[in-house]
Amino acid sequence: MPHGSEHLLLELFLIFVGAKVFGEVSERLFIPAVLGEILAGVVLGPYALGWIHPSETIYSIAEIGAVFLLFTVGLETPPSDLIRVGRLSLSVALAGIIVPFTAGYFFLHWQGEPTHEAVFVAAAMVATSVAITARVLRDMHVHRSRGAQIILGAAVFDDILGMLLLGVLVSTVRTGGIDWLRLGLISLEAIGFALFMIFAAPKLVIVLEPRIHQMQTQNAPLVLALAICLGLSMAASYIGMAAIIGAFFAGLAFADHSVRWNLEPRAQAINLFLAPYFFFSMGARLDLSAFNREVVIVALVLSVLAIISKVGGCGLPMFREGWRKMLQVGVGMTPRGEVALIVALIGMQMEVISQRAYVLVIVMTVLTTVLPPPFLRMLFAPEKPPTAPVET
Amino acid sequence: MPHGSEHLLLELFLIFVGAKVFGEVSERLFIPAVLGEILAGVVLGPYALGWIHPSETIYSIAEIGAVFLLFTVGLETPPSDLIRVGRLSLSVALAGIIVPFTAGYFFLHWQGEPTHEAVFVAAAMVATSVAITARVLRDMHVHRSRGAQIILGAAVFDDILGMLLLGVLVSTVRTGGIDWLRLGLISLEAIGFALFMIFAAPKLVIVLEPRIHQMQTQNAPLVLALAICLGLSMAASYIGMAAIIGAFFAGLAFADHSVRWNLEPRAQAINLFLAPYFFFSMGARLDLSAFNREVVIVALVLSVLAIISKVGGCGLPMFREGWRKMLQVGVGMTPRGEVALIVALIGMQMEVISQRAYVLVIVMTVLTTVLPPPFLRMLFAPEKPPTAPVET
Repeated sequence: MPHGSEHLLLELFLIFVGAKVFGEVSERLFIPAVLGEILAGVVLGPYALGWIHPSETIYSIAEIGAVFLLFTVGLETPPSDLIRVGRLSLSVALAGIIVPFTAGYFFLHWQGEPTHEAVFVAAAMVATSVAITARVLRDMHVHRSRGAQIILGAAVFDDILGMLLLGVLVSTVRTGGIDWLRLGLISLEAIGFALFMIFAAPKLVIVLEPRIHQMQTQNAPLVLALAICLGLSMAASYIGMAAIIGAFFAGLAFADHSVRWNLEPRAQAINLFLAPYFFFSMGARLDLSAFNREVVIVALVLSVLAIISKVGGCGLPMFREGWRKMLQVGVGMTPRGEVALIVALIGMQMEVISQRAYVLVIVMTVLTTVLPPPFLRMLFAPEKPPTAPVET
Repeated sequence: MPHGSEHLLLELFLIFVGAKVFGEVSERLFIPAVLGEILAGVVLGPYALGWIHPSETIYSIAEIGAVFLLFTVGLETPPSDLIRVGRLSLSVALAGIIVPFTAGYFFLHWQGEPTHEAVFVAAAMVATSVAITARVLRDMHVHRSRGAQIILGAAVFDDILGMLLLGVLVSTVRTGGIDWLRLGLISLEAIGFALFMIFAAPKLVIVLEPRIHQMQTQNAPLVLALAICLGLSMAASYIGMAAIIGAFFAGLAFADHSVRWNLEPRAQAINLFLAPYFFFSMGARLDLSAFNREVVIVALVLSVLAIISKVGGCGLPMFREGWRKMLQVGVGMTPRGEVALIVALIGMQMEVISQRAYVLVIVMTVLTTVLPPPFLRMLFAPEKPPTAPVET
């Protein structure tokens, strides 16, 4: 094989192993593996040790990784759950988006950031990543409690609303300034698309099911799901939204069938291979020289704001349930994750946000992810010591 | 996202859907899907309709696809089976490699082809792809018969011996002319490596098993297997063999654990996504202007030779079992497949073989794959009509 492919294989190997080793160490320190994989990119990447300078091909693979990542998030978001979790979760999600977005935007605006940059960073403050919360609650055997159910339901709405917000933002930025009529139209389009994917698409899949099973192609449901994932990503990208939005809604359309067709473990396998390249390149793009005293202070303030606004926003609709449940839901919704990072990355790729804003989002994501778990454990601990060990 | 990623997503989508549609149509015509996916590349690619001109990134993804393809072939080749199938299968495999290689080499040499080119095309004539045979036998419910068992066993040895041959070839060509001392040394190295991967590596995996289960990383066995796949591919590529050889032996080392760790469906999922890009680019590289009357005639003669030499070579060690079993095994071993194509592709990338030789290999692969199934059905049909329908 030509020289180029040796180098590509070397990069693929080093980044995969580097990301997984850092991920493993993080998990042992009770930090999510994702943060470890990003840290691998920071440490081994061009701005620190400089051992690995990801090539253009790696960045392309990273983008495909982001598409599959969001496809998998979508697969884990069954539309039929949305109806079950009901109105309270929707209110929690809505308030948990409006309050942090507003708080973030006005803080950054007051700091003198340009409007687009402030809007993008504020949008990155919106997306809850419920994976860490879910793991803590499962470890404590309280994932079937009312608080946990509300959190998990709200997280589903939060994903959808966050994607809509991102879609509207990207289209608006692409077409230049904010034109309220256009913004309204785009929002309507995005909501229409979301409603179609939530209500109509899963039914279409059911109608198509007999034909899918008639197909000779091996593993036809997965082939169809991947084709639709790639198709909607491309379509979203062409009509001016982010590709990952298409991937997310493609996952959503198949989520109700994911268990029966055994889609999720297979999509996860593709993810397991591709996602490390995405997280590593996230880290590798972090220019450490952008860190200085001023940035760190702004980042810390922004992180505190991200925590308070999410706890407050999500807690608000829970006021009838008492302070404990308010805090349970608020703290449970606090962790941000991959979606926040992707929003920042898209902003940087569109040249709307600077390295400085990218640093702000990464610090905010790390702090909102690392801080809540101990508090969650306190808040979900049984109020009276149980007489027998809890087993569910 | 930047303009480039839109275009990449468009390519990813079109190639995936194109390959799968052609694959589905092929399967319905009882032609293996792989051939359909290659045909998609020929038809939609730059030399025919010209709708899709794969970019460098697609070719890189195709190479990663070839690595995972051979990794999956390795995963389906449990070393513990080798001991069970025993000496007869080994003789079948050996004779089935020596006879076609010699026949192909001397025919091409006589045709006036350069030595390197003749050697590479002859090497492509060696690798049996048992997938088609296995499917026909399974459909006929005779896959547990003695003939079928010998074929499946021989196919395992055939894969390993074919990989060794390719490894030796690539190293030899890289270092220039044929130096018999060097050739001997490389062969010893390759055999040593193969023996290590067959006998020592699976035991190493067993020793490591408790540690793998202690890892916090999700799906640790798959992560480890992928890391070793990438690592050995890179190593094989650096020491001057083909990357896919490393991938194949990495799969082999995990084959005994593949079922218990549920590795195969997950590796297959990665394969299902990446392999179409490999097969499509195989087709897209086929310059149709290389077809002319003379090439077609040579290709037909070579294909006939490939069939006769494989039937004869593999049948030879079976002479004690009667003509019917001889033919069963010979015809069953005839189909060539992805490995033949990869050998040709590597030859072309190393600039050792021309478009003309590439055409020869593709035609040979297609004919050896499409022709045997009807004969197989005849040869494995029950000798007397059964009194009751056969159900196993």
